[in-house]
Amino acid sequence: MKHVRHMQLQARMTVGDFVEEMNRAGVLGAGRIGKATEMITEMFSNPDCTVFLTLAGALVPAGLRRIICDLIEMEHVDVLVTTGANMVHDMVEALGYQHGIGTFAAEDRRLRAENLGRIGDIYIQQEAFEALEKWLSKILDAIPEEKRQRFATAELLCEIGRKIDDPNSILATAARRNVPIICPAFVDSIAGFQLWVYGQDKTMHLDSFLDVNVLMDKVYEAKKVGIIILGGGFPKHFALFANTFRDGVDLAVQITMDRPEPGGLSGASLEEAISWGKVKPEGKAATVICDVTIAFPLIVAAVLDKLKTR
Amino acid sequence: MKHVRHMQLQARMTVGDFVEEMNRAGVLGAGRIGKATEMITEMFSNPDCTVFLTLAGALVPAGLRRIICDLIEMEHVDVLVTTGANMVHDMVEALGYQHGIGTFAAEDRRLRAENLGRIGDIYIQQEAFEALEKWLSKILDAIPEEKRQRFATAELLCEIGRKIDDPNSILATAARRNVPIICPAFVDSIAGFQLWVYGQDKTMHLDSFLDVNVLMDKVYEAKKVGIIILGGGFPKHFALFANTFRDGVDLAVQITMDRPEPGGLSGASLEEAISWGKVKPEGKAATVICDVTIAFPLIVAAVLDKLKTR
Amino acid sequence: MKHVRHMQLQARMTVGDFVEEMNRAGVLGAGRIGKATEMITEMFSNPDCTVFLTLAGALVPAGLRRIICDLIEMEHVDVLVTTGANMVHDMVEALGYQHGIGTFAAEDRRLRAENLGRIGDIYIQQEAFEALEKWLSKILDAIPEEKRQRFATAELLCEIGRKIDDPNSILATAARRNVPIICPAFVDSIAGFQLWVYGQDKTMHLDSFLDVNVLMDKVYEAKKVGIIILGGGFPKHFALFANTFRDGVDLAVQITMDRPEPGGLSGASLEEAISWGKVKPEGKAATVICDVTIAFPLIVAAVLDKLKTR
Amino acid sequence: MKHVRHMQLQARMTVGDFVEEMNRAGVLGAGRIGKATEMITEMFSNPDCTVFLTLAGALVPAGLRRIICDLIEMEHVDVLVTTGANMVHDMVEALGYQHGIGTFAAEDRRLRAENLGRIGDIYIQQEAFEALEKWLSKILDAIPEEKRQRFATAELLCEIGRKIDDPNSILATAARRNVPIICPAFVDSIAGFQLWVYGQDKTMHLDSFLDVNVLMDKVYEAKKVGIIILGGGFPKHFALFANTFRDGVDLAVQITMDRPEPGGLSGASLEEAISWGKVKPEGKAATVICDVTIAFPLIVAAVLDKLKTR
Repeated sequence: MKHVRHMQLQARMTVGDFVEEMNRAGVLGAGRIGKATEMITEMFSNPDCTVFLTLAGALVPAGLRRIICDLIEMEHVDVLVTTGANMVHDMVEALGYQHGIGTFAAEDRRLRAENLGRIGDIYIQQEAFEALEKWLSKILDAIPEEKRQRFATAELLCEIGRKIDDPNSILATAARRNVPIICPAFVDSIAGFQLWVYGQDKTMHLDSFLDVNVLMDKVYEAKKVGIIILGGGFPKHFALFANTFRDGVDLAVQITMDRPEPGGLSGASLEEAISWGKVKPEGKAATVICDVTIAFPLIVAAVLDKLKTR
Repeated sequence: MKHVRHMQLQARMTVGDFVEEMNRAGVLGAGRIGKATEMITEMFSNPDCTVFLTLAGALVPAGLRRIICDLIEMEHVDVLVTTGANMVHDMVEALGYQHGIGTFAAEDRRLRAENLGRIGDIYIQQEAFEALEKWLSKILDAIPEEKRQRFATAELLCEIGRKIDDPNSILATAARRNVPIICPAFVDSIAGFQLWVYGQDKTMHLDSFLDVNVLMDKVYEAKKVGIIILGGGFPKHFALFANTFRDGVDLAVQITMDRPEPGGLSGASLEEAISWGKVKPEGKAATVICDVTIAFPLIVAAVLDKLKTR
Repeated sequence: MKHVRHMQLQARMTVGDFVEEMNRAGVLGAGRIGKATEMITEMFSNPDCTVFLTLAGALVPAGLRRIICDLIEMEHVDVLVTTGANMVHDMVEALGYQHGIGTFAAEDRRLRAENLGRIGDIYIQQEAFEALEKWLSKILDAIPEEKRQRFATAELLCEIGRKIDDPNSILATAARRNVPIICPAFVDSIAGFQLWVYGQDKTMHLDSFLDVNVLMDKVYEAKKVGIIILGGGFPKHFALFANTFRDGVDLAVQITMDRPEPGGLSGASLEEAISWGKVKPEGKAATVICDVTIAFPLIVAAVLDKLKTR
Repeated sequence: MKHVRHMQLQARMTVGDFVEEMNRAGVLGAGRIGKATEMITEMFSNPDCTVFLTLAGALVPAGLRRIICDLIEMEHVDVLVTTGANMVHDMVEALGYQHGIGTFAAEDRRLRAENLGRIGDIYIQQEAFEALEKWLSKILDAIPEEKRQRFATAELLCEIGRKIDDPNSILATAARRNVPIICPAFVDSIAGFQLWVYGQDKTMHLDSFLDVNVLMDKVYEAKKVGIIILGGGFPKHFALFANTFRDGVDLAVQITMDRPEPGGLSGASLEEAISWGKVKPEGKAATVICDVTIAFPLIVAAVLDKLKTR
């Protein structure tokens, strides 16, 4: 049995050295951070490993946009599976709007009167979404009607990414790096409803089976698969279930505040995923029960250190 | 200031009387159960109130199938917005398969070998999904190809419901009662992937904008809206966002174990929803932080009592 | 493998019948409610079973005072292990003060100015604690100084209980029924600090080892032990650890919102308790992850039904 | 309104720079880490600020022993308020026993047979506690019987600390640095029960009112108070309530996975504490909802950086 080694801290230590202390302690949350860091380092340093990153929760509004963008730019991520909302927020920031620092204890009736939408302690002007609608409309108009007859969301998001001139945009970077953005429930986002409005007068059809094609191509061509699941939701299920067609992923890390007890998929353990063939029986898995905005940057910063010093 | 009245229990009390004790106590979880019961009674007893019920989490596997079915049968629910998984489980039970009582502490490698999928402490045979695929295939074959060219998921689910001869089936009852089942992310379900496989050789296109049509018709025609949100996820967002087109719902009850702090929509407060125009500023809202399998049956049983004794 | 039986609800069903539906469903939270109900029925109906009830959290303020009192009155509980706060709130109510129904979204600076203390969405006047101090002082003065030289908290609480003329008081009922109230950390309560103030001028010494005597007598004389743990905290640990001296309890039910992952004792599983000899290896255990104010009254009401209909 | 600044990561960044990125993002969990870091830096750098550190949960077993010890050694902590268990684990490690890295999915019946106690995914040999009992017995024998007539737990723990020759021991360092260790519920720990056994034959009386004296001296002499609350429990309440005698603390940081909704004190917000006079109305407060083993080391490492670079 390995022993818990007590963490030792000092001024000016690097995040990599700090997380190594957690790794040596090896238990509870700190131990999970350590294990997840090792596993993601393994994913990123193995050129044969296809990496799926799934996003749910207010990650872009919370300040993780640049981190996700940089991981794509550095070619560490091969497929992004995401809620529509995170892409909407990426677009809105590309249009120059910024999320504001607010408070959980907001008076929401007042925010409503001031046209501010709240996400936890984050505020965003409703005006941003009006600008988005106009901008999207123009992009769609510029796409040949024939193409709009039957569109994969991934293709549409790639088209949108190509129109964005913002080096910190996830959509732009993914488009440039040929990283598909899979978002089968895009209709359930503000932009999705805007596309629906657009489609009332003009041609606009999304076919999410085409997105399954895009996703499955990545699954079938992968030699090894690593998945990083942030926050659960349908992106977790969609990416994991697609991988049942290759008998499961090899490495799985999930960061979430959800728990198994209520029975929902978001909080389901990665052990449970083995029973479904989503994770290989011989695969490695680590679940970090933590706010994604804390654990993910911490792990990524530590992984960058480890990659540099190898 | 109203005072906390201590709950008093006795043998053979009805669930309605029991929940009334909770209502009089009026605080913490018990108080929320009491308030939610009052609000849902108001929704169900007002003929002008359109009721949206949203489902996320393993509700059908957990034994809530009959309750949901009965609420539709009794015409208490006007629109169902759901994850695909719950409908898949409804189909599988209609085919005669049953969910089994297992344990959270399962050895998942063994379950995998025995072809059992695990959902928390619930087991289901993989065989059920093979049967489902064949059955779905036949249903699809029987639908004119023209229709399969561009299908709302709601229409497809209605077609499927019509083929089910099981009085306890949600799909069958909803089809019979003309209650639309809205499931824009149906592709992210086992059946969704099976439709995709079917579509490799044959014609099969789902257009989720058509589902928005179905949903928005209900939103626009509503005089008053009550929403019951079980477990969060995209069904919560989709149903609430659709209602921004009428400036928000009037009555909102959510039951979830998720919390606001991590920032995800599933745990977002209904106060926050006011800032987005999802809930009316003058609307009523109650959040019950509880396992849905405990709180929802409890509330429904109490509501049935209240409706009877009015 | 037993199958999940879908719950079926109807108007005017008793709580016992309702919980039986949950029991037959048998999974997730509902299944745990069912199992806990069976186990507590077993505890209460076996005259050879010594029942420990542990309290942590704002149970008295939340409206559970009468339920706990009635369980003692009905001789279902043999030992109460509790935080000091719950006894303070019992005293304060015996003095005629009542807890008020407030809101989580309170402006606490205003409450402070209005001399209201907040516990979640419960308010209580600070005036109540001033009255408590005077009342306690009188009670202490009436106790011979010799006795105050070295006092078990249990003895003191019994003395206090004897002075209370309120049939709904936990302290009064426990004193009358000879049920010891074990509260080794009573000093960590408002009354505890008041005793300390009293002790500045007068004789007042509590010796918590004397409380261990009281507790251990119950442990040693028990033929069989059942424990009901509400909310964790030191009462959970104290009662369970005492039972290691008889190699563990036979039946253990805990209701809590805490989880195992962060490593604290409050959220620790009852399986873990087996490794420490707190629960017998062959013992039965059920953990209900639920707000105590919801789950405990529900289970108790169902148990009362079951006991009646046996 | 300040804007969310997206975090930017790079290899070899220091923990201080990393947390500064979180601070600039400013929202959700990351923002709380940033704010808590600023507040604790303020506490540690102001010589007029008396710092209370409260411990609950398996912090010593989890690998935080050295961090807590170093903070005392660096004179950053003036009062420690703790559960007994953390001190028991400090003693056991001082005796040369180590905590082992295990798994949450342990077979607890087997652990029991192997004499291993489990705390989450941490294992400890029962043998350690037998050694502890003998060692404690000798220490007590060496203390004059007169003193054992009436002992503050703080005094006893200081005596014990003086007997420990381990530079990484919290007890030893606190004894050397004259930092009182307040533990009014010490009886609820393995060592507490061992003292009780000792007291069966020999003289051994603890009087926790004496601990209140020690605590209140610190409260009354403080010019300014900062409190760091790890994990809730009675240490949180005891330290905060003591500070009502000076109208509340000036700076309060709590790190916990507990939430306000169930009504327990552990999860209570620091806003609520204002209503009780535990936190000054004009005080500053930050709650970090996070596993303590992740958030506390992260914050401390960042604070050490900030203190160095000032």
